[in-house]
This record gives sequence, structure tokens and C-alpha cells, in this order.
Amino acid sequence: MTTPSLTAAEKDVRDLCVSAREASRFLATLPTGRLDDMLDEIAVELEKEAPAIFAANKKDIAAAEEAGLTKAMVDRLRITEKSLATIIAGVRQVRVLPQPLGQKITEWERPNGIKISKVRVPIGVIAIIYESRPNVTVDAAVLCLKTGNATVLRGGKEAIHSNRALVDALQKCTSLPKGAVQLIDNTDRALVPFLCRQSDFIDLIIPRGGHSLIETVVAESRIPVIKHAHGVCSVFVHENANFDMAEKIILNAKVQRPGVCNAIETLLIDRAIADEFVPRIAAVLGKADVEIRGDKTVLKLASGPKIVPATEADWTTEYLDLILATRVVNGLDGALEHLAKYSSHHSDTIVTDDPAAAERYLNEVDSATVYWNASTRFTDGGEFGFGAEIGISTDKLHARGPMGLDELTSYKFVIRGTGQVRT
Amino acid sequence: MTTPSLTAAEKDVRDLCVSAREASRFLATLPTGRLDDMLDEIAVELEKEAPAIFAANKKDIAAAEEAGLTKAMVDRLRITEKSLATIIAGVRQVRVLPQPLGQKITEWERPNGIKISKVRVPIGVIAIIYESRPNVTVDAAVLCLKTGNATVLRGGKEAIHSNRALVDALQKCTSLPKGAVQLIDNTDRALVPFLCRQSDFIDLIIPRGGHSLIETVVAESRIPVIKHAHGVCSVFVHENANFDMAEKIILNAKVQRPGVCNAIETLLIDRAIADEFVPRIAAVLGKADVEIRGDKTVLKLASGPKIVPATEADWTTEYLDLILATRVVNGLDGALEHLAKYSSHHSDTIVTDDPAAAERYLNEVDSATVYWNASTRFTDGGEFGFGAEIGISTDKLHARGPMGLDELTSYKFVIRGTGQVRT
Repeated sequence: MTTPSLTAAEKDVRDLCVSAREASRFLATLPTGRLDDMLDEIAVELEKEAPAIFAANKKDIAAAEEAGLTKAMVDRLRITEKSLATIIAGVRQVRVLPQPLGQKITEWERPNGIKISKVRVPIGVIAIIYESRPNVTVDAAVLCLKTGNATVLRGGKEAIHSNRALVDALQKCTSLPKGAVQLIDNTDRALVPFLCRQSDFIDLIIPRGGHSLIETVVAESRIPVIKHAHGVCSVFVHENANFDMAEKIILNAKVQRPGVCNAIETLLIDRAIADEFVPRIAAVLGKADVEIRGDKTVLKLASGPKIVPATEADWTTEYLDLILATRVVNGLDGALEHLAKYSSHHSDTIVTDDPAAAERYLNEVDSATVYWNASTRFTDGGEFGFGAEIGISTDKLHARGPMGLDELTSYKFVIRGTGQVRT
Repeated sequence: MTTPSLTAAEKDVRDLCVSAREASRFLATLPTGRLDDMLDEIAVELEKEAPAIFAANKKDIAAAEEAGLTKAMVDRLRITEKSLATIIAGVRQVRVLPQPLGQKITEWERPNGIKISKVRVPIGVIAIIYESRPNVTVDAAVLCLKTGNATVLRGGKEAIHSNRALVDALQKCTSLPKGAVQLIDNTDRALVPFLCRQSDFIDLIIPRGGHSLIETVVAESRIPVIKHAHGVCSVFVHENANFDMAEKIILNAKVQRPGVCNAIETLLIDRAIADEFVPRIAAVLGKADVEIRGDKTVLKLASGPKIVPATEADWTTEYLDLILATRVVNGLDGALEHLAKYSSHHSDTIVTDDPAAAERYLNEVDSATVYWNASTRFTDGGEFGFGAEIGISTDKLHARGPMGLDELTSYKFVIRGTGQVRT
């Protein structure tokens, strides 16, 4: 298992992957009740270890403030009494979710009498590479444990003390097999490509984070990857839209929480209604402190201190801020053309009272979630009713959109015969 | 779309990928009836073009014979009247299969009134990299077209004339959009890594073939890959096995068609019955001209001109020939241990009359298809009743085991609201 050419740090990562593989084999054979027992113990242990977790988190916060991180970034790192309680409540919510393992997805009998069942099984070992938020550490580990998977966690260096304390608490649970939840606590970026080559021990890599992290993982990985990349989401206001509804949806999708991937970055307005709708929405967005980056027509129809010209780059930029790229398009065809060219295929909405236009949009827009008359902000495992999500896949294979417990499973075909052979 | 640093051959591949992406966008918007019409036209066109196909195939056969390829390899290349008729019948069989596109996998309504449907959609552009068999060219193109996907085909150089003639016939169909089915007819291996980097235009790569081809694709690809790799399949004869049944299954799984991935390469025999069963099966296999590579116990219990010692490498070798690695193991635990260490996770069988042993085996063996009292040779889309298969996935993500039409689709969430926003 060890090669003399490995560095000490690489050897540590390799050993941890080997141990995760062993744990995953054990987890796969457990009755599902035993998996749920682990989650019970984790919730209790996190409560017990709260003082150690807060103390560790203080170190991360102090380091972040010293390093001059923005207030938003420091806030994302912070574990408060309330946020730890939310994390623990999340563990208990996952515990009571229906268990997908063992579920017969389909079963049938062949004319020769063999009985085939397609049964949900764990994937095996899942590596999760993420950035700063320490709540991901527990969420990911618990969702993977519920579905019988071992996890190798590699969080950002800003949260390293918090992540260590959280994983220490999980590893204190006597019901968890050794290796079921592990943290790579060396945050040297050079180890990411090494991790991505451990295909003998890891079955799936989920990178969550910025463009460069995801690019690195995709370029280096020899293991299947499910990307959780960015969202350049949009609203298209069709000529037959209810303007009040459009206004409400645009405001919600842009302003309610601009820093998340399901917030909109692009507004498309039908040319047929631009004269009336552009000035109206510009005024509303202006009041909400949103900067508009408009095309020529938008700039002709509205002006103000926060209305500036858009460049080509604006149609593909995820601002995660109070900025909205705004364009007037030639009807539904123009909107579809824009989205085919620029969409990040995450979440897109049409606002219209015309069912034919809506159905064509829903059919032709190739995004993980397509909406008619609703805010893009619903693209979320909780809002879908999944109870929990490991993230939102921007890939098309295995999992697309909000990724719940089912998507953390694979399947196998179980065949029961009475001596059948092939002729 | 073009970069000055591309070679002329790379530029050709890139242009072809761009055109496939455009075709895939068009295919995704078509009513599914139009896709089936294409398959009707393809069947007719292949009949019309038969003389050109046979003439092209003759060139490949002549080149193969001149190059001294084995008779088995030349036979795999050959297109006869009968094999072309089988290919065409296959197109018509796929045409009448139920259409997965548009199928609502699930739908539900949330308390806020939004209606969510999970709907099957095409994946987009699928690249298939395969070796010599020209029938794969038509099978793959047709399965992908049925499910609204464009294909980029890259076959082996030995079949290049046949593949060109087959794809020419497909491209003569006026119902197919330009770019829907394309062949990379430059078989320079150096272009494979280039193809694997076209993530803007290709959504999935399916490599079918030998170890080195699959290794290259996995190492180079920035596109999701579903591997169709090798099978080191096995039969385990448990102490409570019916020996007649075991004998029949072992013979079928080894001898009926040794050159395929679902034939067995390993035989595990329970120590409790080894004294009786090893000599018996050795005699039967000897008559069937099978070479046994046995462990020490096997060699003690049986001897003959074709019984030789096994080495460590034998437990992981896909012979595709009349050779069987044979080992005596310590009961069910020993079999499970062997499989955890050496299995290729393709297809494995237990022969036993003990339901508890069988259920433990079915639960704990981590293979795409696990069998109780049946031959591994049933791991096949046709035998499963899928009507057709693009191949047999040895991966655990998206598709595992025989990969039918459903596995050539992705899904999207379609949400219909009445103005809902998130609070």
C-alpha cells in the first residue's frame, strides 16, 4: 500500500484513504438501524464537546480577523451557540429521514425464472473537498454515514481548528468504526491532486467551492466527480407576464440572499414589454440598492446612479452580490438563445401567463431546475422536501440539482435463481 | 471556438464536437416520435448501403489479415450478410422500445403550492471510444439517438473503413440533424486525450475496451466517464451447494463463451467440501479443455496435464480464454475475504442450498451483479430484458452493470408555481 516515493504528507493521506475503504466495507454490511444509532450518538457527542468546539472555533476566528478576512467570510466561519444547535438539530433530522439503503428500486422476473432486484447500496468512500464553512463538516459526514458511506473530509485552512474539533467529537463516538469519518488536516493545496488519484480507495469526489478548486479537481481526478459549481441563475419576463408577480420574483431571487448559488445574476426582459417594464423594475431594484448592468436598450430606458453598462463578461458572472446583469431580448426565442449560450444550467425561471410559452421554456432550457412563475431560490434540498442535501450538483450524471440521500447511494443487481444457465 | 495553437487534426475534432453540441440542443427539443422516425430511416438506409458497407469491410479484413491479426480478431471485424441483418434488426428493436424521455420519474407538490416534477431528459453529447467491433458503431449511435443524445464515435483503426461506411449510411438519413452522429476518422491515439478535454461540448465519455485505453481516458478526462472495463467474475461453491447445479453453472459460466466479460475467471470452493468437489470439477473441466490454475489445496486434490499452480496474479487476471483460477477457501468468510481483495466488482455467484449463507453473500459482495444459484453469463442488457444495452458499466456512479436506455438519460426538475417566493 505504501510506495517509497511518497512524501510523509502523502503517506498520511494514503493511510487515511486505506482506512476509509476498510470502514466502508464494514459500514456496507451493517443493518441500517446501526447507522441511525451512530447519528444518535453523534448528536449527543457534539453537545458534550461544545466547549472544545467553541474554543477551537475562536482560534479560527482570531486567525481570520488577523488575516484581514472580510466580515462576511469571518461570519461564515463562526460557530455560535445557535449555529451549533442548528448543526445538532440537523443531525437529528437526518437520523429520522427514511433510509434509502436496501430499498428495491425495481424488481422483476425473467421468463427463465431468474428474479432480478435493483437494490440501493452505499457508494463506498466519498471525499468532500470544500472551503470555509465548518457546518459542512458535520452535515456531509452525517449524510454519508446515514447512507453507509465512509467520508474523507478536506476543508479549508481557515476552518482547520473548528473542523478538527468537530471531527474529534465524531471520532469519539464508540458506535462509529475507525475510519468512517476522517479529516485531512494538512491543508496544503498540493495534496488535493494526490487525493484525486486515490481511485483504489475513493469512489466519489464532491468538490464544493470556487472555480479554481473545482477546476483543479476536474483536471486531476481519476475518480468520478460530482461538481457543485457556480450558479448564474436568471429570470425571464415574458411579454405576457404579470408584472406584479415578476417584480416580486425578481426581488426575491436577487435580494433575499444574494450570496448563494440559487440567487439570480441575470434578468432577461422581453422586448415587447421593455418600454413599460424596464423603468418599473429599475426603480424597484434601485430602492433595494441593486446595481444594474444593462445592455444598450436597458440603458436607454432607465438611468440612475447604479445603472451601468454591461460587458460580455457580465452574462456569465456569478456576482453573489447586489448586482444584476439585465438585458432586453427578442421574445422567448431571444431568451432561449441567451440561455443556450450563457446559462450555467443551474436554475432559470420564466414569468408568464402564457402556458404554451411556459411549456416551451421548461422543455428547451437545459438547466437542473427550470421554473415557471416561481423564484429560483427554491433550488435547495430543504425546499424540495429532501430533509437534507449534500449540495447542489451542476453535473448531469448520477445527480443533478439538489442532491439528497438517494443520490448518495449506488445500486446493485441481486439475482436469485434455481440453477439457471445461459443457452 | 478555435485556438491558434491547435493542430489541424485537433481542429477537426474540435469542429466535430462543436457540431455535436449544436445537434444535441436540437435533438433535445424534438418530440420523441421524431427520434423514432430517425431510427426507421436508419434501418432502411443501412439496407440500401449494404454493398458499400461490405466493400469497406473487405478492406478492413484484408488489412487485418495482412497485419497478421488472430482469427478471433478478424472474425470480430467481419460484417457478413447475417451480421448486418442482425445490426439492422437491432435498430428496429430499439425503435420499438418504450421511450424514456419525458417520463416523470417522480412528482410532488410542496406545502407552498409549487409542483415539482423530476423529468427524464437527454444527457447531451456522448463520446464513445471503443476498439474493433464495427457493430458497436451502429448500436451506440442508435441507442444514443433514441434517447435524444448526439454521439461522437471513435472506433479502432482496424475497423476504420467499415465504421466510415456505416456512419456514412447514417448521415445520409435526411431526418437526422447534421452533427447528430459523427465519427472521428483519424485514429491517431494522441487525439484521445484531446477529445477527453472537450468538456464544453461533450457531457459523457464511455470507453469500452482494454485496460490501457480505459486508463488513458480516466487519467486524461475532464468529462464524466462511465467505464466499461474488465470482469474477473467468479463462482463460489458453498458447503451446502447442490453439486450437480454447481457443475452446470461453472461449466456454463466458463465454457459457453469464454471471451466475454461475464464469463468466470475464478472458482472458489468451500474447504468443507473440497475433498469431494475438487476432483469432480477438475475432471469435468478437463474434459471441456479448461486449464486449471490451482492453489496448493487444489493441486493436492487433483492433477492432470492442464492443472498447474496459480500465482498471485491469477486472482486478478481476465483470461477471456479456457483458463480458470481455482482456490479452496475457508467457508463463506473465506470467499467474502477473497472477493473483497480481488474482485473486479462485475458479477459473482454463490451456489448453495442455504438461504442464510446466500443472503449474506448477496448483501456483502460489492459487485454490480450478485447471483445466487445462477450463471454469471446473465449479466447482459438483453438477458435482463432491457432490449438493448450500450454496455456493462463497471463504475458505481450513474450506471452500474448492464446500461440500458434509462442510463443514457439525465433528468431535470421542472417546477410550476403561481408566483411563489422564498421567505
